[in-house]
Parts: sequence; C-alpha cells; structure tokens
Amino acid sequence: MNDTSVLEQSAANGKAASLCELETPCLVLDRDRMEHNIARLRGRLARFDVSLRPHLKTAKSVEVARAVMTSPAGPATVSTLQEAALFAAAGVRDMIYAVGIAPAKLARVLELRAEGVDLAVVLDTVEQAEAVAAASRQAGVKIPALIEIDCDGHRSGVQPKDAARLLAIGRALDGPAELRGVLTHAGGSYGARGAVALQQCAEAERRGVVDAAAILREAGLPCPVVSVGSTPTAHHVTDLTGVTEVRAGVFVFFDLVMAGVGICAVEDIALSVLATVIGHQREKGWILIDAGWMAMSQDRGTAKQAVNQGYGLVCDIAGVPYPDVILADANQEHGVIALRPGADGALPELAIGDRVRILPNHACSTAAQHRSYHLVRGGSDRVEAEWPRFGGW
Amino acid sequence: MNDTSVLEQSAANGKAASLCELETPCLVLDRDRMEHNIARLRGRLARFDVSLRPHLKTAKSVEVARAVMTSPAGPATVSTLQEAALFAAAGVRDMIYAVGIAPAKLARVLELRAEGVDLAVVLDTVEQAEAVAAASRQAGVKIPALIEIDCDGHRSGVQPKDAARLLAIGRALDGPAELRGVLTHAGGSYGARGAVALQQCAEAERRGVVDAAAILREAGLPCPVVSVGSTPTAHHVTDLTGVTEVRAGVFVFFDLVMAGVGICAVEDIALSVLATVIGHQREKGWILIDAGWMAMSQDRGTAKQAVNQGYGLVCDIAGVPYPDVILADANQEHGVIALRPGADGALPELAIGDRVRILPNHACSTAAQHRSYHLVRGGSDRVEAEWPRFGGW
Repeated sequence: MNDTSVLEQSAANGKAASLCELETPCLVLDRDRMEHNIARLRGRLARFDVSLRPHLKTAKSVEVARAVMTSPAGPATVSTLQEAALFAAAGVRDMIYAVGIAPAKLARVLELRAEGVDLAVVLDTVEQAEAVAAASRQAGVKIPALIEIDCDGHRSGVQPKDAARLLAIGRALDGPAELRGVLTHAGGSYGARGAVALQQCAEAERRGVVDAAAILREAGLPCPVVSVGSTPTAHHVTDLTGVTEVRAGVFVFFDLVMAGVGICAVEDIALSVLATVIGHQREKGWILIDAGWMAMSQDRGTAKQAVNQGYGLVCDIAGVPYPDVILADANQEHGVIALRPGADGALPELAIGDRVRILPNHACSTAAQHRSYHLVRGGSDRVEAEWPRFGGW
Repeated sequence: MNDTSVLEQSAANGKAASLCELETPCLVLDRDRMEHNIARLRGRLARFDVSLRPHLKTAKSVEVARAVMTSPAGPATVSTLQEAALFAAAGVRDMIYAVGIAPAKLARVLELRAEGVDLAVVLDTVEQAEAVAAASRQAGVKIPALIEIDCDGHRSGVQPKDAARLLAIGRALDGPAELRGVLTHAGGSYGARGAVALQQCAEAERRGVVDAAAILREAGLPCPVVSVGSTPTAHHVTDLTGVTEVRAGVFVFFDLVMAGVGICAVEDIALSVLATVIGHQREKGWILIDAGWMAMSQDRGTAKQAVNQGYGLVCDIAGVPYPDVILADANQEHGVIALRPGADGALPELAIGDRVRILPNHACSTAAQHRSYHLVRGGSDRVEAEWPRFGGW
C-alpha cells in the first residue's frame, strides 16, 4: 500500500529505496534474471522459422509484456478478456485469447476488434464455431478463430485425427467467420522428466497441430497459423517443421516447479516474495514470517515432484537460498519456515524484523496474489522501480 | 470488468441484472444465507457474557463488515494493515491486527491510531514487546498489545503456562506501552471432528488464555481483554468463563471445509463462483468451464477430509448442488467438472454457454481471487448489488 510512497520518498531524497524499506509481504522481480530468461528462449527459438507469442497471463504487467514481446504491438497470448483489454490499451494489437470461447464473451471480443485489435479466439466444438459465425454475421466482422487440438489428453481440444469434427468446425467458421488455424498446449509436459521425455512431449505437440492442419488444408480449408506452446516443450523441442509460432508464459520468471521439471536452475528464478520474520517456535524448529498463502498462493506443485519445496524455498535478502530451508506451512498471513524433513543442517539465525525472500512453486499463481512488482537487479537490494500488475476478468 | 456496467444498464432499463448476464467467472454472495449465518452465531453467543469481534479477513468488504459487526465502529479483527486502513476509512474504530507485529509496521499502526482508530497489535516475544514499547515512547502514544497464546501448538504464541515469558513480555509492555490482554486462536479445531472433539478444542482455547491471564494478573499486570476464537470452536463452545470476546471469520460465508468439519450444512454456504460451460470431453466424462484455480483458488482443504470435494462442489445456477458433481481439476482459467470418483449417477446435461455455480473449499482464499461480490437472495437469479472487495497489504 505504502510502497509507492517509500519509492517516491527515496527518489525525493536522492537515494534508491532498499528492500529493507518496503512493506512486507511484497513481490520482488529480479530484472537481470528475467532478461536472461527471455534472451535464453529467444536464442533457442532463433534456430527455427517460428515467431514467439508469449503468454502474458504469468505477468499481467504492461512493463513485463513489453520486455517479453518481440514488438510493442505483439504478438501475445492472453488468458482473460481483461488481459486483452488492458494490453490493448497499452498498444498490443495481435492477441489470441487462449481459453475456449463462451458465446456471451463475443460482444467484448467484437468491441476490442472494433478498436483495431486483432484478437483471435479459440474453440473446439461446432456449437462454439456456429456462435462465432453468427456473431460475425451480425456484426459484419469476421472474428478469427483457432481450433484447439488435444495433443496429450490433459484438458480441452479436438483429437488431432478427428477429421469429422475438425472439418465440421472449420466449415462452420470459414466464410462467415475466419478460420485462422490450429493451436495446442502440451500441458502434460509439466509432468514429464528428462530431455528425452520432454522432446517426446514437444514432438507430440507439433505432430498434433501439423496433422490437424493437414486435414483442414486437404479439405480446402485455410490454416495459416499452426501454434504450439508450453515452457517445457519450448525449451526442448528439436523440430518445429510445419509450426508457425510458439507460445510460452512462465519462462519469463521461472519457478520451483520448472526447476523440478529440469527446465531451469533455481538460480534462474526471477520472482520472489519478500517477507519479515515475526516470531519463533524454537523447540519446534520454526521461524514465523508475515508471508502465508495469501502472499505465496496455495500452489503445492512441487509436492508431486522429487523435491517437495513446501510453499517455497527460503533465501536471504540477496536471493541466495538457505540450504534445505523451506516454507513448510502457511496460514492466510503466517508462514512457517523450517528445515526440509530429513535434512541435516540448521535453520539460519534470523531475528524478529529480519527479511527473507521466498522463491515460489508457481510464478503464475504467486504473482496473481500481488498488485505490483518491485524491481531489483541480481543480489542488489536497491529497488529500481515498481511495476503495477492487474487481475480480474 | 464490465459487471458494473451490466448492473448499471439493467438499472437504467428499470430491470434487475440476472446471473445470466454477468461476465464469468465472478463471485456470487447469497445474502439470505449470509444473514442466517450471522444471526446463528450471534444467537449462539448471546448466552455468554462476551462480545463478538468478527475477523474481516474473509470478506475484505466494507458492506459485509457492516453486516457482520455488532456496530459500524466495530469491534473487528483484521489480518493486514491494509484491512485496518481501509476499514478505518469506512468508520471502524476498534480493531486488533491479529498477526504477530513486525517492528517496521509500527509506524503505520501509529498513523492509524493518530486518526482516532483504537488499533491493537499482537505479539509473542520480548523483542516485539520492546519494539512496541520503544515506538510508543518515541511517539508519546501507548500502543496497545495483546500477548498471543499457543493453545494447541499449531502456529505462534506463548505456551499458556510459560510464566517467565509471559511476565517478561507483560513487563516490557506495561508502562511505556499498554498491555491490553491475551489472545489465542484454536487453529487446530479445523482438523477436529465431532461435537466432543470440538468442545475439547474450545475448552483448550478458553483454558489457554484464562491461565495466561491469571499469571499476568497475579503478578499485578493488567489483562482486561481475554480473546478466543475460531469458527469451529465458536459454534461448539459451552463455557466461556473468564473470556471477554470471541473472534471468528469464515462463519459469515461458510465453505466446504467447514461443512466437512460439521459446523454448517452445504446449504448454508453463502459464497459461490459463477462460471460458464466452454467445452466437453465426453469420452472422459468431463465438462470444461471458465473457472479454474484463478477463480476458485488452489485451496484443496477438503482433500484431507472424509469427502474430497476437488476444487469445489458444482451447483446449478440457483445454487442447488448436482449430486456428486465436483470441480475435479483446475488449470489457471480452465475448470474440469466430473463425477466424484466412484460415484454412481451421471453428469448433468450442460451445453456450451450454460452457467453453473461452484461452492468453494475455503471462502477466505476463493473470495481473495475476486474484486467484488454479486449479491443474490436464495435461489433467485436477480443480482441486487455489487459490493467491492479489496486485497493487498
């Protein structure tokens, strides 16, 4: 709440705010690490003839979007129409709303298109395609739609070889609306381990959309866009033949789940929650902090991985992890720091008022609990800027 | 985002907005159920000589606060200084910030006290007491503090019979600051089952603070406030001798975890998330909706209970549960509706665009994902009002 005034006061005094002066809990973003992560994926994709359409649902911040997009106008992927509207207001002109469209949402899609935003929708049923076609006819505007393909059975989408359904959807769209292409997301890759398994996920993702595109094209239907994407597959794919664009989101910050899958090192994680020590239960081996699940989210994604990180990995204020020290439990505004079960070693000596930084299991859900990012670089405690973020639908 | 305009347009047209017109996902609050829940706890506590100090962390809404508090000025409990500041701006004058105080937060506490708000802090160490005393001396204002007591080993607090620590804290406060009393929270009661176990939790909670108060008073220290509270114990306590006030929070809405503990019926749950059907995977028995963990939160509190409700219990638009139909899985903006594992029966016939309401595992965490409540009464789909809520620290 008062962080901005801390930053403003510091600026007025001619000195930078420090992490020690911020209200806690709050979100810290290491800009060096973020820029490294962005450069890494861009470098990886440079060998392929594809564009990068980053998913902005992780960041929900205009400043982060501008850092991660290949141009201020996009392309980009969004998960809500609220993101589409706010990024459109910031100049983004090419977006895919990558959650199956509900017919009642088409009015807002048309509003954004009328403002000059090329916003495309995603669908996997004939009913949705007919609703898009009807809304397009009524508005005299061809809404572009991509057919979602189910490459790994984890969520929504048409089976890649279900020609009858693909063609029925494609024909319902083509003409009254616009059949923009096919899209898939290898969500199952989050559960894969090792380069071979991840490459198989990437190939299943590619194969799914390429097969579906071939069915559409053989029937004389257009399919200009062939879109794949997940952070694990984007970092392991070796062949993108037939694919036109790659989407990925969490790579911009990375997190403990991605480290557990082996996509990044813990040292690459750009996001952390700054917290203050508020108590001890020494006989239990607990240190209490003012960051509970409201600040960390309740994501326990690492509980299913080889290394269970609790609610997060505890670092010093410079962002360096204490060995085997995790946020073992969390209430709404209380976090319990403890040694990982079975670990040797000792808790750090932390006094009331000392500050720590907690690396999150899942960057998307932890960031969603906060209204802004406090920017630092590397191990410096100097806060360079505060970037707002938004939520809602 | 556009919900307000839907409500405004409807008002301008002289008709009430309906749940079918709202953007989804969004939060629905059944005012009849909320009022029933508030009346129930007030009726229960009327037999005791205690005041009710509701915890406003569940609602974070001025309108809900006014419905649940016994006067517009309080008393109330808050979990963040942001809540304290915003409720103070709405006229609340008597609050306890019930998370162990960090010394750096005392400046904001003093700011609110200077505005005429009787804001008390909570602590459990001599270091915190000395910081409160020092800040009080420096400001020339006696900050009131309550000593947190650990009645069940679940989180923070001084052991009830640890006279040395109690007296050291009390003596550090008394004089320079104000020793307002003792406070505890039977968080362990969430894991209890059955009236006998819950009454034991309530008695341990009462015993803890009454014992600690006696130690302080016998040493000549003041202890005017003796504060207990959790929703399960408040609904089962049979003896509050020596206690001056009861705190409870989630009772205002209730949720599936509280129903699982046996504190309420599913039909008492006042909060739900309105969502729209966006797809089917019929061969898997899945219906996809536009409410994932961003709308529901990732709370899986019922996973440890006898009946695992997944990410929530699925109801029709009137709020009536479909038998054994749960939100079985959730991604950021996708929810997967399925039959409970092992259940007989069938999924409801729901078409693309149909609407459902999902009862949450945990009202505090689900509400925290949203910016407003849409008010309905009973099974009506008429939206009476939209009440804003806030987050942050």
